[in-house]
Amino acid sequence: MSVTPVAVIIGAGDATGGAIARRFAREGFTLCVTRRQADKLQELVSRIELEGGRAHAFGCDARVESEMVQLFADIERDIGSIEVVVFNIGANVRFSITETTERVYRKVWEMAALSGFLTGREAARVMLPRGRGTIIFTGATASLRGGSGFCAFAGAKFALRALAQSMARELGPKGIHVAHPIIDGAIDTAFIRDNFPERYALKEQDGILNPEHIAEQYWQIHCQPRDAWTHELDLRPWMETF
Amino acid sequence: MSVTPVAVIIGAGDATGGAIARRFAREGFTLCVTRRQADKLQELVSRIELEGGRAHAFGCDARVESEMVQLFADIERDIGSIEVVVFNIGANVRFSITETTERVYRKVWEMAALSGFLTGREAARVMLPRGRGTIIFTGATASLRGGSGFCAFAGAKFALRALAQSMARELGPKGIHVAHPIIDGAIDTAFIRDNFPERYALKEQDGILNPEHIAEQYWQIHCQPRDAWTHELDLRPWMETF
Amino acid sequence: MSVTPVAVIIGAGDATGGAIARRFAREGFTLCVTRRQADKLQELVSRIELEGGRAHAFGCDARVESEMVQLFADIERDIGSIEVVVFNIGANVRFSITETTERVYRKVWEMAALSGFLTGREAARVMLPRGRGTIIFTGATASLRGGSGFCAFAGAKFALRALAQSMARELGPKGIHVAHPIIDGAIDTAFIRDNFPERYALKEQDGILNPEHIAEQYWQIHCQPRDAWTHELDLRPWMETF
Amino acid sequence: MSVTPVAVIIGAGDATGGAIARRFAREGFTLCVTRRQADKLQELVSRIELEGGRAHAFGCDARVESEMVQLFADIERDIGSIEVVVFNIGANVRFSITETTERVYRKVWEMAALSGFLTGREAARVMLPRGRGTIIFTGATASLRGGSGFCAFAGAKFALRALAQSMARELGPKGIHVAHPIIDGAIDTAFIRDNFPERYALKEQDGILNPEHIAEQYWQIHCQPRDAWTHELDLRPWMETF
Repeated sequence: MSVTPVAVIIGAGDATGGAIARRFAREGFTLCVTRRQADKLQELVSRIELEGGRAHAFGCDARVESEMVQLFADIERDIGSIEVVVFNIGANVRFSITETTERVYRKVWEMAALSGFLTGREAARVMLPRGRGTIIFTGATASLRGGSGFCAFAGAKFALRALAQSMARELGPKGIHVAHPIIDGAIDTAFIRDNFPERYALKEQDGILNPEHIAEQYWQIHCQPRDAWTHELDLRPWMETF
Repeated sequence: MSVTPVAVIIGAGDATGGAIARRFAREGFTLCVTRRQADKLQELVSRIELEGGRAHAFGCDARVESEMVQLFADIERDIGSIEVVVFNIGANVRFSITETTERVYRKVWEMAALSGFLTGREAARVMLPRGRGTIIFTGATASLRGGSGFCAFAGAKFALRALAQSMARELGPKGIHVAHPIIDGAIDTAFIRDNFPERYALKEQDGILNPEHIAEQYWQIHCQPRDAWTHELDLRPWMETF
Repeated sequence: MSVTPVAVIIGAGDATGGAIARRFAREGFTLCVTRRQADKLQELVSRIELEGGRAHAFGCDARVESEMVQLFADIERDIGSIEVVVFNIGANVRFSITETTERVYRKVWEMAALSGFLTGREAARVMLPRGRGTIIFTGATASLRGGSGFCAFAGAKFALRALAQSMARELGPKGIHVAHPIIDGAIDTAFIRDNFPERYALKEQDGILNPEHIAEQYWQIHCQPRDAWTHELDLRPWMETF
Repeated sequence: MSVTPVAVIIGAGDATGGAIARRFAREGFTLCVTRRQADKLQELVSRIELEGGRAHAFGCDARVESEMVQLFADIERDIGSIEVVVFNIGANVRFSITETTERVYRKVWEMAALSGFLTGREAARVMLPRGRGTIIFTGATASLRGGSGFCAFAGAKFALRALAQSMARELGPKGIHVAHPIIDGAIDTAFIRDNFPERYALKEQDGILNPEHIAEQYWQIHCQPRDAWTHELDLRPWMETF
């Protein structure tokens, strides 16, 4: 059992999730990082350990209630007291309305909204008896605007925002800080590099978000004293149109 | 085959859906009204016919893709050209986050968002080749605000709003009018009468919405010329706090 | 003294204000139309009379408190009971922040916000004792978004929206309907024709708003029964990006 | 001439402005603090000096263009290069619409919006040639919602938000960070202590905002790297209803 507090990152497989995990590890948190296949997280765990931190990888399908219930129970029993939970699963797809299959519409919601609900609920269950904790849901441009072609993605991100608001209003007065940062821009990831090379080239001018800087904000949100909590903030490169 | 235009009301089982159906029937539309069990719609069909209109009842589970695809195909083949589609299924529930089961969270989304997506997509498919049509999604207070205890309901209504926005931005320039009226108040229904008697008593002072007046707005939205379309509007009793 | 109800249009000098005046005149209202110089309203008054209506022109600087107080007193004393007030003065300018003079910033606010406040307050004063009436403030794209170069115009339109919201929340429960339609697109006016010819050419395809259609909406807002009032709605040509 | 960067706080007379000034002074900034009467700022200047910082007090009516132009010129010439500007003047009043005088409506706008415009414009003028700088406008609950009785205050705060948005969209791509934190709750000030004692009593439970914590956020906003800027965020005590 860890005597240090535990931070759980649901969806730690991308650059953002990894950077957030490392940021909290650097502050002494024991990290529990998840994605569907745990073995793909070994590199992240090793890096955190190399940097002097503690981390555990969990293979977990965040869309499956029983797996999520088990995950939180296992962590609380075997690792330590969960103080911070970050939900960081996205599912950015774009299809015209008539090209959007029921399967896509459902999958995107399961990944980006249902998983968020299961994460938030299990986090609330362990935090409520202690009357403290931080729960952060990663938002996107599509959390605020249903653009053409984004009925599935925006539908899921709007739903996640509704969850964050609903939980903030219920759990804030019980001592739990629920936040919803909105990332409005491309992030420096392999996905952007490979699929949007022109966009990626803006990196030279700080035109895409550095995951380490996103992670810093998440850390700052957690550090806010309870008389001055932020529920929602945007994060955007200086040159991004909005 | 009807030579009059067809209006389809998905979720015509409540007072609002019924009033909307009767309003369009009065203007000469042939009405196709749906709910899960068609026999429960016989009263509405009879009333429309008594009032001189034409109506057909369909039993259809709006959450099931194959049933919705079939429904639109049947109507277009057997009844007439669909000019108006109204999605009117709600699923108002309230549970604290820790009391919200995965089943409830999923069911509410399936009823109020997935069904809306299937409705909107099938409507778009028949309307796009003709370059015209009106699609209206019924919104609620929870479409704009995730209140405490409403993570499931607001999640679904936020998702429906994302769908309406996304479709409006894609289909508006193709001649299809997509609108999202937001009903911000109690409606004069059996549900309110039986469960919220104090609220229902406000009816004497026009403190709850008359379904006929909601229906009138839907009709007005459909009548807007294409140089002056409304995408979103609120409807609220004069004495309602907001 | 008129036995017919009175509608007052503050800022009736443009196509929209004129169309709104004619629309209400057609329903039997006695119209009181204002702009800074009354003689420029003679054409509108004559047209209303030709169409069988009644109208009076008032020269009035809506930015000057004493003139507005006098205007409402004169109308109530000499013409009749004010049932509808429309505030329709805009002041669309665009300057970069460093090129915006204090004079411009102040003038735009005086025209589009201070005048609106004086209009709304005087309207409230005559309507409150009767417990009924409709007050409509014309909004614009800049009511919702502070775009680059629009610090003065958006500042005034945001302020007008704050006024409309504040008055709706205070006066709704006292029987007065306050609405804020948002015109999101170019209107068919001499100004657009002369300054934005490419935009004006979209008129052929209904790509700019017809003032008569805006006027129809204002009339519909006034007609709403008090159990189903709209506070805010958008009006936008079908092909307009948003 | 200071070789350290300069931070200007317009409206440093209250607890929040003072705390922000001290926070930036602690990081090595030379502080220029203003309010109408400079002598009332001596206590703040002394405190900053006692804490090892540098500060200058300026008497300046922020509503008067010539005084603001002079202020920025004087600071740039005599003190140093302005890197940070904070606009922190509020004017919270509450009157029913019919009790709101033209004088109040105008004064509140001049204090909370016109002054903000002059501040923002002069800040932009000195920062644009250098292609960097941070400008922060303090928002409030009334920046987002026009509540009953708040037509003047919300009008001014809405206008200030429009200014912040407009400037962010224009100046962001030119390297200047414009932010609009929204303080949604009572702040620990003499005003709250004296006028709202019940509210003030919540201080024991961290139910009102500590100015030092607000100041910390302002500092964090300034520290954000330009690939991850925040334009808007809320700050709210954990127990505050929203």
